[in-house]
Amino acid sequence: MTTNQLIQQIKKKKSFLCIGLDVDLNKIPQHLLKEDDPIFSFNKAVIDATHHLCVAYKPNTAFYEAYGLKGWKSLEKTIRYLNEKHPEIFTIADAKRGDIGNTSTMYAKVFLEDLAFDSVTVAPYMGKDSVEPFLAFKDKHTILLALTSNQGAFDFQTKTVDGKALYKQVLETSKTYTNSENLMYVVGATKAEYLADIRQIIPDSFLLVPGVGAQGGSLKEVCKYGMNAQVGLLINSSRGIIYASNETDFAEAAALKASELQKQMAVELSHHFIN
Amino acid sequence: MTTNQLIQQIKKKKSFLCIGLDVDLNKIPQHLLKEDDPIFSFNKAVIDATHHLCVAYKPNTAFYEAYGLKGWKSLEKTIRYLNEKHPEIFTIADAKRGDIGNTSTMYAKVFLEDLAFDSVTVAPYMGKDSVEPFLAFKDKHTILLALTSNQGAFDFQTKTVDGKALYKQVLETSKTYTNSENLMYVVGATKAEYLADIRQIIPDSFLLVPGVGAQGGSLKEVCKYGMNAQVGLLINSSRGIIYASNETDFAEAAALKASELQKQMAVELSHHFIN
Repeated sequence: MTTNQLIQQIKKKKSFLCIGLDVDLNKIPQHLLKEDDPIFSFNKAVIDATHHLCVAYKPNTAFYEAYGLKGWKSLEKTIRYLNEKHPEIFTIADAKRGDIGNTSTMYAKVFLEDLAFDSVTVAPYMGKDSVEPFLAFKDKHTILLALTSNQGAFDFQTKTVDGKALYKQVLETSKTYTNSENLMYVVGATKAEYLADIRQIIPDSFLLVPGVGAQGGSLKEVCKYGMNAQVGLLINSSRGIIYASNETDFAEAAALKASELQKQMAVELSHHFIN
Repeated sequence: MTTNQLIQQIKKKKSFLCIGLDVDLNKIPQHLLKEDDPIFSFNKAVIDATHHLCVAYKPNTAFYEAYGLKGWKSLEKTIRYLNEKHPEIFTIADAKRGDIGNTSTMYAKVFLEDLAFDSVTVAPYMGKDSVEPFLAFKDKHTILLALTSNQGAFDFQTKTVDGKALYKQVLETSKTYTNSENLMYVVGATKAEYLADIRQIIPDSFLLVPGVGAQGGSLKEVCKYGMNAQVGLLINSSRGIIYASNETDFAEAAALKASELQKQMAVELSHHFIN
């Protein structure tokens, strides 16, 4: 999917919501456990109920790997379902991979070609030749970890490197990578005030923002500091939506929570694009 | 496996060789492609021929994920075979994972509990709460990326952070993590001269050293600067050993290459522990 197609979807749906499909068998409605593939059944129901309210889905691969072969099968079925039924939706493999050149190419093929996700999250620690293999895929996107939403982000990411915070070095250096136009960035909502600085370095890039809701970030603040002329934001919510209920009404409850966020996003969009 | 058990194996075998099981179906002998599970057949033959010459095996998960469900099955069979037939061998899941707390716990369970590897490689970018979940497993080891062997290592790892290279900050900060005694570190052999500095910070830790051979690093140099009183080194070789031949004699050829390295290691051990 091209960035323009994503922007069109955002404008059409008045939503820049990404729903995190982080499925934990201990948290889903227990009646689903009788199904052949409870994870896929859960995802399918959530997708069917929410696809008109969001523009992206993001399964975190850890939740699927946790169930071994069965989990990988559920992941395959989920992305195939999305690509067949909702090709207009932007898909993110939240895999946080990164390895030396040839090995990164293997990861890139798995997620961007074989599973046919639109994008994959990548860790920047190993530098250029670990990231560029992901950038080589046309109309696919590499979402680089810049400033994450967890406490550990302060261990290294915010430390000063040659006069500038490490996450800023990551942003600036990554702009020099081949095919850098395929880059997006993870920036945690719990650090919304950093977004103004970040927009100085990457005014045009899309940001994937986790941490709104469960982790305490504010949608309003994120939009204030992070929105650009092309919106430029995907706001992720996982637990707050998919575990809104663990009864038989879980999909409707998820849709209700997604709808609340979508309405807030519509308000933000009208503020930013009328003024 | 405890660190002491690993050291005992090194002394017994006069070897600190780790063999990287990075299996690419395009590079293995073509007669194996007729087998049910060519990757496992290849690994089993290599393991049977080399287990007395090395103390560790390290499958890089990218090579298995690349083949989807089949690949994961081959990885499962390989680690089960190792744990059943050669429980004295140290096993490394080279997965380079790392995510926020709960999600890192899921990855840790997959590799250290379900697949029962002795250790897993982890990327440090997300800091303390992304690493500590891996450290919580008793007699298991977390091998943190410090200074990698690729060119991209110079993008961020060697940059100066608060007066010190980032990889040194990673070493120092990680020493403060809960259960830090379960840490080992990846340090590339292509940067052997850095090892003296590294030993100032972490005199006692084991280092996993890729990049000897194919990537140009020297065993002698690595031992000169990196060996400590408990040896403290695992030197990895992948392609140089497992692809020594792609004919029917591939396992014997792998054993010959492994044996050459083991002999050089025996010489290094005798130098360092007699003087």
